[in-house]
Amino acid sequence: MIPTKGYAAQSATTPLAPFSFEHREPGSHDVHLEITHCGVCHSDIHQTRDEWGGSLYPMVPGHEIIGVVKQVGASVTKFSPGDRVGVGCFVDSCRTCSNCNEGLENYCENQFTGTYNSKTRDGSGLNFGGYSNQIVVDERFVLKVSDKIDPAAAAPLLCAGITTYSPLRHWKVGPGKKVGVIGLGGLGHMALKFAHSFGAHVVCFTTSPEKVADAKRLGAHEVILSSSEEEMAKAAGSFDFILDTVSAPHDLGAYINLLKRDGTMCLVGVPPETAAIHAFALVMGRKRLAGSLVGGLPETQEMLDYCAEHGISSDVEVIPMAKINEAYDRVLKSDVKYRFVIDMATL
Amino acid sequence: MIPTKGYAAQSATTPLAPFSFEHREPGSHDVHLEITHCGVCHSDIHQTRDEWGGSLYPMVPGHEIIGVVKQVGASVTKFSPGDRVGVGCFVDSCRTCSNCNEGLENYCENQFTGTYNSKTRDGSGLNFGGYSNQIVVDERFVLKVSDKIDPAAAAPLLCAGITTYSPLRHWKVGPGKKVGVIGLGGLGHMALKFAHSFGAHVVCFTTSPEKVADAKRLGAHEVILSSSEEEMAKAAGSFDFILDTVSAPHDLGAYINLLKRDGTMCLVGVPPETAAIHAFALVMGRKRLAGSLVGGLPETQEMLDYCAEHGISSDVEVIPMAKINEAYDRVLKSDVKYRFVIDMATL
Repeated sequence: MIPTKGYAAQSATTPLAPFSFEHREPGSHDVHLEITHCGVCHSDIHQTRDEWGGSLYPMVPGHEIIGVVKQVGASVTKFSPGDRVGVGCFVDSCRTCSNCNEGLENYCENQFTGTYNSKTRDGSGLNFGGYSNQIVVDERFVLKVSDKIDPAAAAPLLCAGITTYSPLRHWKVGPGKKVGVIGLGGLGHMALKFAHSFGAHVVCFTTSPEKVADAKRLGAHEVILSSSEEEMAKAAGSFDFILDTVSAPHDLGAYINLLKRDGTMCLVGVPPETAAIHAFALVMGRKRLAGSLVGGLPETQEMLDYCAEHGISSDVEVIPMAKINEAYDRVLKSDVKYRFVIDMATL
Repeated sequence: MIPTKGYAAQSATTPLAPFSFEHREPGSHDVHLEITHCGVCHSDIHQTRDEWGGSLYPMVPGHEIIGVVKQVGASVTKFSPGDRVGVGCFVDSCRTCSNCNEGLENYCENQFTGTYNSKTRDGSGLNFGGYSNQIVVDERFVLKVSDKIDPAAAAPLLCAGITTYSPLRHWKVGPGKKVGVIGLGGLGHMALKFAHSFGAHVVCFTTSPEKVADAKRLGAHEVILSSSEEEMAKAAGSFDFILDTVSAPHDLGAYINLLKRDGTMCLVGVPPETAAIHAFALVMGRKRLAGSLVGGLPETQEMLDYCAEHGISSDVEVIPMAKINEAYDRVLKSDVKYRFVIDMATL
């Protein structure tokens, strides 16, 4: 067993605190990596505080993991010690269902195994995530990360990056399309960068006038203040696609109204509460409300390679591990531009 | 002006009663038709009782109209006196927006003009619908109805027929697809017939065990009792497409759970209330909740021709005009197989 140091929540109401645990010895298909950076995702907060229900404690959060390979199992072919690698939102899946066979392990019909807040596939123990100095992961679930990207700025690509890249690709966002991004946080700022890079006309929706300039710097051609009834009314019926990155309750109908006929609004933020939808909103104009959940391993690798090639990464604020509870408070106040990343050397 | 007899609601709380009014003299592009039959749609009840808000009184309902051409304007080319014709849910639109130009007048960007419960395009008066002995309609909004179809059984095709045909076509229901139909009423029974005719594997969801045999007769290969948790659990993740025809409040999440990855559930029933949707339901499996509203004129004509060719029409119970209030009560109790059609000779 590999003695590991990290930070854990012991219950829904206790702050994160230092925690020691063990990882399995690397098997023949495993990669053992030393974690250098881990991003702080809003879903880490939802899960440590049990806002989605069913949380498993102790919980070491973190699924935006960048590290360096320390050792590999005898059968590992893709990685060698010293390689820069990443681990995202899941570390296993059934590997036999049709979705897994298509490389869409994110939609595994037998449920993927989350990087943390999950039981090991054999049910014998819990998985612990990236707020720690090491992790052992099967090579299928490990990604190559180019040295061209700053490792701290690469970490959020493993969740915020793929979560926005995948639906923008799936719904064919590109030249000639008018695309909205709701919310300018960890997910939203990546969506602006990708949608701009794909050649779409990009509009950012925000409630904060002080974010306008930054939204434009990040790739928005226009910014709409969603609090302005006048601006919202002017935009009615004009969007091909809207990506909704907000994970706090908000009025979906107000945005569905902005779609063209046959337009799609896709949810990637998951508020703990249900949303109220009137059938009329979808029926008028044959509109679609969809969802999307991170991405499969092949597409995650494609996204990382695309980022290296096009110079895309996250805007991050690097913090020491000990500041994590303060960082959570600031995430909830949207006081971060645009993702906290823990420098694991500080652990 | 053309003196016309019909039945109207004078307010949201009064029953329908005999009403005399006038239609415009037919202009050069108009078709003047004598109505022989008119279907009774659930939305007639929603609108006469102002359950969607904004109802205009007096209201002569009816948008599943079958008639015979009495006279045509000088410029009319498609129709001659004596032709069997139909009029559906709308009698005008802007005719200039991109949706109208594509023959999707149902999604007119400047709002189509409903067959009833609407103002005339010039704002000068109200439009009165098919619970009456005559109507005058621009030829663009009049459809040819083959003599091969019984006229009473043809009437519901103008709303229930196209409302189900259009989304089944749009989402490419056909061989190799597993398709669900929620609700076995006016819309649902047509959806079963079409989906079966298109070659899909068809499953009917109903709350009524006594409807099972009839659902199979109408085209269902399987029937699932939606009240059975066990049957619903067994069907999880297995549907390509589900058409939801129910216009009473119900749990959408329970059905979205039955979709495969990338599956679509399409709403065509419009409950007056909003529905509660949890983002997780759509995010897990990249699912889509959509809406669809009747169909454009070219597709409505295509549907009518398809029905004539394939021997498809509605199962109807023909009633005299004077029984309309009783019929409304029975619709609300789902006590009709599967559509009331008024025999206008009884007016």
